[in-house]
Amino acid sequence: MMKWWGWGAYDVSFPMDQKPNLWPWARTKLGLEVERSTPPVERASLRFASPVMNDAFVGALAAAVPHAECSSSDEDRLHHAYGKSYPNLWRARCGDLGRLPDLVVRPSSREDVESILALAHAHEACVIPFGGGTNIVGGVDPLLGERRMIVCLDLRRMNRVVSVDRYAMTAVIQAGASGPELEQQLQKHGLSLGHFPDSFEYSTLGGWLATRSAGMQSDAYGRIEDMVVSVTMATPMGVIETRPVPASSAGPDLNRVVVGSEGVLGVIVEATMRVHAAPAAKDYRGLLFRSFSDGVAAIHDCLRAGIRPSMIRLQDEGETELAFRMKAPPKGLSGLLQGGVKAYLARSGYARPCIMVIGFEGQPADVRRLRVQALRVMKRRGAFPLGASVGGAWSKDKYNMPYLRDYIMDRGVMCDVSETSATWDKVVDVHARTIAAVEELFREEQGGHGVVGCHISHTYDTGACLYFTYAARQIEGRELDQYYRYKRRITDGFMQSGAALTHHHAVGTEHRPWMEQEVSSTGLRALRGLKAALDPKGIMNPGKLIPDEGKTAQPPP
Amino acid sequence: MMKWWGWGAYDVSFPMDQKPNLWPWARTKLGLEVERSTPPVERASLRFASPVMNDAFVGALAAAVPHAECSSSDEDRLHHAYGKSYPNLWRARCGDLGRLPDLVVRPSSREDVESILALAHAHEACVIPFGGGTNIVGGVDPLLGERRMIVCLDLRRMNRVVSVDRYAMTAVIQAGASGPELEQQLQKHGLSLGHFPDSFEYSTLGGWLATRSAGMQSDAYGRIEDMVVSVTMATPMGVIETRPVPASSAGPDLNRVVVGSEGVLGVIVEATMRVHAAPAAKDYRGLLFRSFSDGVAAIHDCLRAGIRPSMIRLQDEGETELAFRMKAPPKGLSGLLQGGVKAYLARSGYARPCIMVIGFEGQPADVRRLRVQALRVMKRRGAFPLGASVGGAWSKDKYNMPYLRDYIMDRGVMCDVSETSATWDKVVDVHARTIAAVEELFREEQGGHGVVGCHISHTYDTGACLYFTYAARQIEGRELDQYYRYKRRITDGFMQSGAALTHHHAVGTEHRPWMEQEVSSTGLRALRGLKAALDPKGIMNPGKLIPDEGKTAQPPP
Repeated sequence: MMKWWGWGAYDVSFPMDQKPNLWPWARTKLGLEVERSTPPVERASLRFASPVMNDAFVGALAAAVPHAECSSSDEDRLHHAYGKSYPNLWRARCGDLGRLPDLVVRPSSREDVESILALAHAHEACVIPFGGGTNIVGGVDPLLGERRMIVCLDLRRMNRVVSVDRYAMTAVIQAGASGPELEQQLQKHGLSLGHFPDSFEYSTLGGWLATRSAGMQSDAYGRIEDMVVSVTMATPMGVIETRPVPASSAGPDLNRVVVGSEGVLGVIVEATMRVHAAPAAKDYRGLLFRSFSDGVAAIHDCLRAGIRPSMIRLQDEGETELAFRMKAPPKGLSGLLQGGVKAYLARSGYARPCIMVIGFEGQPADVRRLRVQALRVMKRRGAFPLGASVGGAWSKDKYNMPYLRDYIMDRGVMCDVSETSATWDKVVDVHARTIAAVEELFREEQGGHGVVGCHISHTYDTGACLYFTYAARQIEGRELDQYYRYKRRITDGFMQSGAALTHHHAVGTEHRPWMEQEVSSTGLRALRGLKAALDPKGIMNPGKLIPDEGKTAQPPP
Repeated sequence: MMKWWGWGAYDVSFPMDQKPNLWPWARTKLGLEVERSTPPVERASLRFASPVMNDAFVGALAAAVPHAECSSSDEDRLHHAYGKSYPNLWRARCGDLGRLPDLVVRPSSREDVESILALAHAHEACVIPFGGGTNIVGGVDPLLGERRMIVCLDLRRMNRVVSVDRYAMTAVIQAGASGPELEQQLQKHGLSLGHFPDSFEYSTLGGWLATRSAGMQSDAYGRIEDMVVSVTMATPMGVIETRPVPASSAGPDLNRVVVGSEGVLGVIVEATMRVHAAPAAKDYRGLLFRSFSDGVAAIHDCLRAGIRPSMIRLQDEGETELAFRMKAPPKGLSGLLQGGVKAYLARSGYARPCIMVIGFEGQPADVRRLRVQALRVMKRRGAFPLGASVGGAWSKDKYNMPYLRDYIMDRGVMCDVSETSATWDKVVDVHARTIAAVEELFREEQGGHGVVGCHISHTYDTGACLYFTYAARQIEGRELDQYYRYKRRITDGFMQSGAALTHHHAVGTEHRPWMEQEVSSTGLRALRGLKAALDPKGIMNPGKLIPDEGKTAQPPP
């Protein structure tokens, strides 16, 4: 179980001691002359409202699925009460647990899930599917004010790779398998799914599918929806099951109706996924660019030349500074050398440089060829090679960033991320506008203090994902207002400049106010039609994804 | 306009005179000791039922869209009365025009389409979207017995490439643009959509999207759904409009709800599509394999080695024989030489060989490298190189095959195609079973006479498309029974062996009886939910794609 007030296991925290340059720099940037201490409330002080029990449902469940693990313990309710958004963690730290789920049920098979949904439908109990609980857009939070019983369906017992077909390169995987669990099972066959989102250590296949996730290697292996061959989703009205064929023209693709459905239509129980041979060779390199726009142009050149690295991650000036501060200071001779290089770079126009990490995976010969081709193209845009160590440093820290948020939330600082995608013609503009908008908020609210940066995390033929991270001093007493002010300003900016509402974090409650703008009102009508057909009583994950009809869309309180 | 009784323009027919070896061979195979002459009935003998006129709708239309081109002429109704399936053409040739559309309307803008649908919804007139009219699964045929007025919405006036963004590599294209029209407009920018289905000369972007089409170059550029960036579809309840972003996780992908909707949800009016630079180099080669399974193994080896040609087309023994008969006989020395090569090949195990055409497009260096790599891998499976001329021969005839059907239908022969896809573990088995099933029908009905063959037309990491073509003497007096006997036997076989209902021909009326098996009953419920939300009165393309609720699924009469 993850910390109820933060990210990751209870015995893991951000390794700040290994990064002596980071916090002093961040304190100055954030304007923390006086460092506050804002730890979460004590566990013992948490108050648990009595669970709502729908006795007819509970009785029927005990009779129909006697082996299902059911729990209403404080411990289980607490650890299934919300995801890991900033508002989730802020409230939890204050001891505000919101509307707790009433019962946590852990099914062990598709049949269990089918039975539970049929009973929940019959007895009007709400069901929230729950995988790793890593959602950061409010996707697993019970709706405040919900009077019906809320059942949290924890899929983590369904964590097996059921079968593998090495000739077709497909694997049938249960929805509750976490990243490490499924990769470990596939590894025995020399295979990999190739899906590595930031939440990899905790999140599950079902969660990835439900939120249309993208991973760090998606440039090579595709987004999660590109990997789906077939899928099984239990709904209150029966099971949607698609057939495992490589391609079809039999009507609208129901795999894509299931993917992204965020638990509002049903519970994904299993999927047949494309898998890949574990790559024989990997090569990750660091490059330095004089500016973000030079880096963007270099990526664009590369893709247009038909060169597709497995991963391209371009950090802007702000994030690059953060990355440099994350490094341990070099000692002795290497310190002197690095100082010299730095001075040389500053003189050569790299005064506020941008780091790119570029990765190649596959057969050794292909890796070598692609790397040479890519670097040749990128050098024309001023790429300065940093060698393989930067790639290693990035790889070492890649799953650490969520822990950093806890560290700074302990010290009175707000920290959040916003991600979008835009076509190439808009990438530089959306970046500049968003950074400007956040800096304006820093000026309005924090006297200009704050940290903001962005990286390109995924690239496509038509455009790229822009991933923004920002941190600012909390405004005491109105911490959530402050967060929503940022959220609204940034997201409105995305919509106005033609960028996506969300690239891989999904909708949940946090992006729901913009769904009508994103998919058009008739698009919403289509989604509501699906919901009405599959969940006519509205028991599935209420209050997520699809805005209520007729209500004005407002960001949550 | 295409021939009302066959394929293509009135002044084009199959160039049988250039293929002197073909018909004598086919006659023997088909058992046509006596060649019948079965031309279509005379145009003058056709009888046109009076159009049903919904006066309220017609009046409102004239007031709201005065510039819309409307016609109830016999000529227009005839040329919009059905697609190009075997039953369509058989009936037409007999003078049975079915339920003709009552009015052909040619809108010129999105606004026109919106107005027409709103009026049709208000006055309960049916609407059938019509592009090139090339559908071969009954997708544009008015429903027999429909009493409401039927409006055929011919999109062909909306045939422009509206805008091009060379940096993002996207183009906004109107739905009514045919293959040649849109490629010509893109060519001015040095671009190509890269979508070349067999029907390319006539079919339209809207039709491709509505049917989830795949083209000859889909291995390189993806299926039509992979190319969609955003789409605009008018429905009776308003316009679904997605936003042109490279990737999104904002709920189920509505692009994929629109793609494959076959006109039953609305009318696709426009889409933003990914486009590509016209390739600098092309290289098409022929190879010969000792057996179909050797060829399949060679493709599989190739893909597993990470080598992805732009096109791979592997013909089985039956289709290869047909292909050889299509060639003009070589004369003089080259004839002698070819005879020698043939004898040598027969001695070396290529007695019943299989032709593969393999194509590479892109930068010259990449084309060369990929070709060398692919041929090296394929030679290990016994590939015998035939050089570039086979590729040329294939390319020359690639749009000719639909004309051949008319030629043989004039001579008392049934001819149809069935396509499916299967994962690699099943490809050889599905091929063998299907060929065996058709040959069994030949024995049951035609004393063993008939022509059947198959080719792999599209490949994927997980599997391939199998495309079967078969021809047999018509059974006089029960020609449609005969066709549906084949259709049912083959399609049941696909479903039983885990292959797709259809890979790129879509559902229409012909595959509708199998839709429940294909997408599950709850999957159908989802589709019905979409239909109810967007077309509550059921005016959009009635009787297609989604089986009627509660009715037993039966193949059409």
